[in-house]
Amino acid sequence: MSLVTVGSVAYDSVETSHGRRDDMLGGSATYFSVASALFSPPSLVAVVGDDFRQSDVDLLASRGVDLTGLQRASGRTFRWGGRYHGDLKGRDTLFTELNVFEHFEPDLPPTYRSATHVFLGNIHPSLQAQVLDQVEAPTFVALDTMNFWIEGEGDALKDVLARIDALFINDEEASLLTGCHSMVEAAAAIRALGPSLVIIKRGEHGAMLFDDAGVFCAPAVPLSTVVDPTGAGDTFAGGFMGYLHGSGGVDPIRLRQATVVGTLLASFCVEGFSLDRLVEVTRDHLRHRYDAYAAMTTCPAPSL
Amino acid sequence: MSLVTVGSVAYDSVETSHGRRDDMLGGSATYFSVASALFSPPSLVAVVGDDFRQSDVDLLASRGVDLTGLQRASGRTFRWGGRYHGDLKGRDTLFTELNVFEHFEPDLPPTYRSATHVFLGNIHPSLQAQVLDQVEAPTFVALDTMNFWIEGEGDALKDVLARIDALFINDEEASLLTGCHSMVEAAAAIRALGPSLVIIKRGEHGAMLFDDAGVFCAPAVPLSTVVDPTGAGDTFAGGFMGYLHGSGGVDPIRLRQATVVGTLLASFCVEGFSLDRLVEVTRDHLRHRYDAYAAMTTCPAPSL
Repeated sequence: MSLVTVGSVAYDSVETSHGRRDDMLGGSATYFSVASALFSPPSLVAVVGDDFRQSDVDLLASRGVDLTGLQRASGRTFRWGGRYHGDLKGRDTLFTELNVFEHFEPDLPPTYRSATHVFLGNIHPSLQAQVLDQVEAPTFVALDTMNFWIEGEGDALKDVLARIDALFINDEEASLLTGCHSMVEAAAAIRALGPSLVIIKRGEHGAMLFDDAGVFCAPAVPLSTVVDPTGAGDTFAGGFMGYLHGSGGVDPIRLRQATVVGTLLASFCVEGFSLDRLVEVTRDHLRHRYDAYAAMTTCPAPSL
Repeated sequence: MSLVTVGSVAYDSVETSHGRRDDMLGGSATYFSVASALFSPPSLVAVVGDDFRQSDVDLLASRGVDLTGLQRASGRTFRWGGRYHGDLKGRDTLFTELNVFEHFEPDLPPTYRSATHVFLGNIHPSLQAQVLDQVEAPTFVALDTMNFWIEGEGDALKDVLARIDALFINDEEASLLTGCHSMVEAAAAIRALGPSLVIIKRGEHGAMLFDDAGVFCAPAVPLSTVVDPTGAGDTFAGGFMGYLHGSGGVDPIRLRQATVVGTLLASFCVEGFSLDRLVEVTRDHLRHRYDAYAAMTTCPAPSL
């Protein structure tokens, strides 16, 4: 059994209240892979240009990520530039250069095709479907998407939603997709489209997991300092999927635990630019942060 | 020992996506009192006009609220009108008629002056201080405020903050008061102003309690339908203070339990216009909702 992920590998230029950094390693598949690798190193499907730094290849390889499916194309690597607002709750995209990503055709190496777990990162829904077509008998398929695809490729998105088990989506996008303001209503509407699990990401407000067992609310870790929110959602998904794959089963308890693991890893991610902080994280760090998290989310029953 | 609260008793006209209702019973002290009364009926200090309905007096009296301190003045009761946006996250104030509230001079009946617990609802900080001056030896004083006083009466507010134990404040107001975007930083800055406890209210995202024991995060109850968010914050504070007063002590566990009780009561409040839903709530309803809440916030430790 293995875990395959497809998504972007990119160079990001980001400006936050903590400064500006150019051409940093980024992309949905990158954050996902490094987070997941703490539990289950994934097999990566993505494309980079001939400017992609060997040190970044080495970083991914050093975490055990299978790079057989990392295509090298002639041209520049996908680039994204953004500036976060002072409160880090909003951001403006300054530029998006698709570069080699424009003609990306995901092609799974033969060794990937027997994967049991699949994470379809935030790319065109048709490409997500194309990856899924190449996996022989997946047992757990999760997908992330964004407002751009919901608004522009709604039909293709709905086709692929019908084929998956879990959707990762933020609260605004969940409302956009369903027309529902209540996340309870939005999750029910999404579940009717296919995925039996819906994970609503709410940034600093945490995450909600909706499944057959009901709803699980995981507050975010309160942080003194957020340096760069980029990649938090993909890191969350990476922690979730890595934990779930590593745990060897899917049940309501493991799904909740996976939600907590995703929450903890996302809290590290935003403490530094790019993957600076995330790559430092060990299972020991994770255990310590979990202890603090348990202390801040536990309360004996009130006398009612 | 008793619990005294001061605040507004009002008639509200509210429009939400669920309809429009005029001249409904409202006001911070009203929501607070009905919520608190489930555990500890408070002694109310407020003013109403000669148009105040006897049925509304009866409602408060029927919950055991001490109305000795409810002044009747010649003129109309305080009125507020607002229209909520479709997603219920924002609202526009359509009108504010102070009416009899304009010349309100809180005067505590002699029987109130020995109170141990005091809740200073959201009114002018000087009036809050005036109430506090009249309580002989309070053991636990909490206060609520809003952007209007933070921006316009910052000095008076800081004077009274230095005299209290607990501040209830929403996240945007906490940032406004302190200049901090991080709630961890904002709470630390507020604690430096006086109150050793800070309760950050985040609406549908729940609440955070900061005290000497650290931070406690209480997610909100996910709801399918929110009819009218008016009064949720005061209901939260009422549940919190009523539980704390009734529990007979202040320690980190009771404070967390009080935060959960406030969260549960606020979830009922928003399910109806005005106090429609809140007045129906019994301790039995609260126990049932707590059981559901415990189920949606509990997760066994992950294997890390």
